[in-house]
Amino acid sequence: MEKVKKYHRDDPNSYTLGSFPTYELLESRPELVKKVIYSPEYDGAEKLLTFTKKLGVPCFEEPQSIRRISDKGNVYVAALFEKPKREELKSDTHVLLVNPSDMGNLGTIVRTAAGMGETDLAMIAPCADLYDPRTVRASMGALFRIRTAVYSSLEEYRRSYPEHVLYPFMLKGSVELGSLEEVGRKRTLVFGNEATGLPDDYAEYGQSVRIPMSELVDSYNLAISVGIGLYAFKNMK
Amino acid sequence: MEKVKKYHRDDPNSYTLGSFPTYELLESRPELVKKVIYSPEYDGAEKLLTFTKKLGVPCFEEPQSIRRISDKGNVYVAALFEKPKREELKSDTHVLLVNPSDMGNLGTIVRTAAGMGETDLAMIAPCADLYDPRTVRASMGALFRIRTAVYSSLEEYRRSYPEHVLYPFMLKGSVELGSLEEVGRKRTLVFGNEATGLPDDYAEYGQSVRIPMSELVDSYNLAISVGIGLYAFKNMK
Repeated sequence: MEKVKKYHRDDPNSYTLGSFPTYELLESRPELVKKVIYSPEYDGAEKLLTFTKKLGVPCFEEPQSIRRISDKGNVYVAALFEKPKREELKSDTHVLLVNPSDMGNLGTIVRTAAGMGETDLAMIAPCADLYDPRTVRASMGALFRIRTAVYSSLEEYRRSYPEHVLYPFMLKGSVELGSLEEVGRKRTLVFGNEATGLPDDYAEYGQSVRIPMSELVDSYNLAISVGIGLYAFKNMK
Repeated sequence: MEKVKKYHRDDPNSYTLGSFPTYELLESRPELVKKVIYSPEYDGAEKLLTFTKKLGVPCFEEPQSIRRISDKGNVYVAALFEKPKREELKSDTHVLLVNPSDMGNLGTIVRTAAGMGETDLAMIAPCADLYDPRTVRASMGALFRIRTAVYSSLEEYRRSYPEHVLYPFMLKGSVELGSLEEVGRKRTLVFGNEATGLPDDYAEYGQSVRIPMSELVDSYNLAISVGIGLYAFKNMK
């Protein structure tokens, strides 16, 4: 049986922290779960044991393992899971994040995309780790409900999905979000890094878009931009 | 001269951490600033001294003070400021947060509201501390560009702005955001706590609204909801 140890990005396994993402994982991707562990303080052990037994997933009381992976000591249940391989994206609409660096933002974006019914998320490396327990937690487990794929370059992504029209979100985008009249059926909303945004040349790869913004700020938070962008595209007639 | 010490919520003063929010404060509310301090490692000292001198704001190299307030040791400049009194809101459109509890979310909401040109933010207590240095930092200094006011109850808020139509954002809101045909000129978008949302009775106080959401998630992050709500209302014809 696998020992549960502190997570490192190169590990083939990661884990969920807390009840909510653990159940999300068990419900949506049970085949990835190696085992579920809980501490004596966990008040949902009986329900958990019944559910994992039904799924055929090992489940044990392991206070020491929980302590090892819980930074702040407020975690009572966790699931060790095998990180999935890169998946093939299948929807007509994608979200593409170029070099996102913040795990909290990334998890929030995953949760937002899933909420908007967007099930395909691509990223260009280098990027924050999708499977770090902190990203998983920020996603509220929604990470297990969508497909994800990391590409080494924009070129590699574009070769894989040549029919997708790109909409790079840029501070100097040539069209304001609310003024787009018509959008491609196969399309990709593209967002840059938290601090630097997208490189200027991304404007050449599609229809650059800007979110309306007052002079009181210099930019929006990345996850906010993705949320507004997805909502606006979803509501385009 | 005021000594700079670790922040507590009851203090009459707080401080900005880092160059960006410090300059935002100096540019927008210099009358609040008691002094600006920097460490020997700060590479913008010359520019800062010139700017603060022009404003008549004291500015000193104080490595020990910086160390005292910088948790992670990556802060090189800070400004001690007096927290403003509760302000009277003046716009026709308000954002009202009911019991927000997360400072990062709150700062992001302030930044988003300012970006959308919304300059009036109200909160119902208990609520996260607007002037905690972490909130100020998450707002990227946008906190100093808007008016804010905390009320003890919804009733107190409504008595102060009786003409405002309320739009409570709720998971079970009776109208979907994109289907609102017409909205009040004097209006308030209302959002609940991160974990619990708005109490059910808020539906009685106005036109409850729901953001479209797939079955893949249970809710959106609070700041994301505010961003989408503000964008949608701004773009209503």
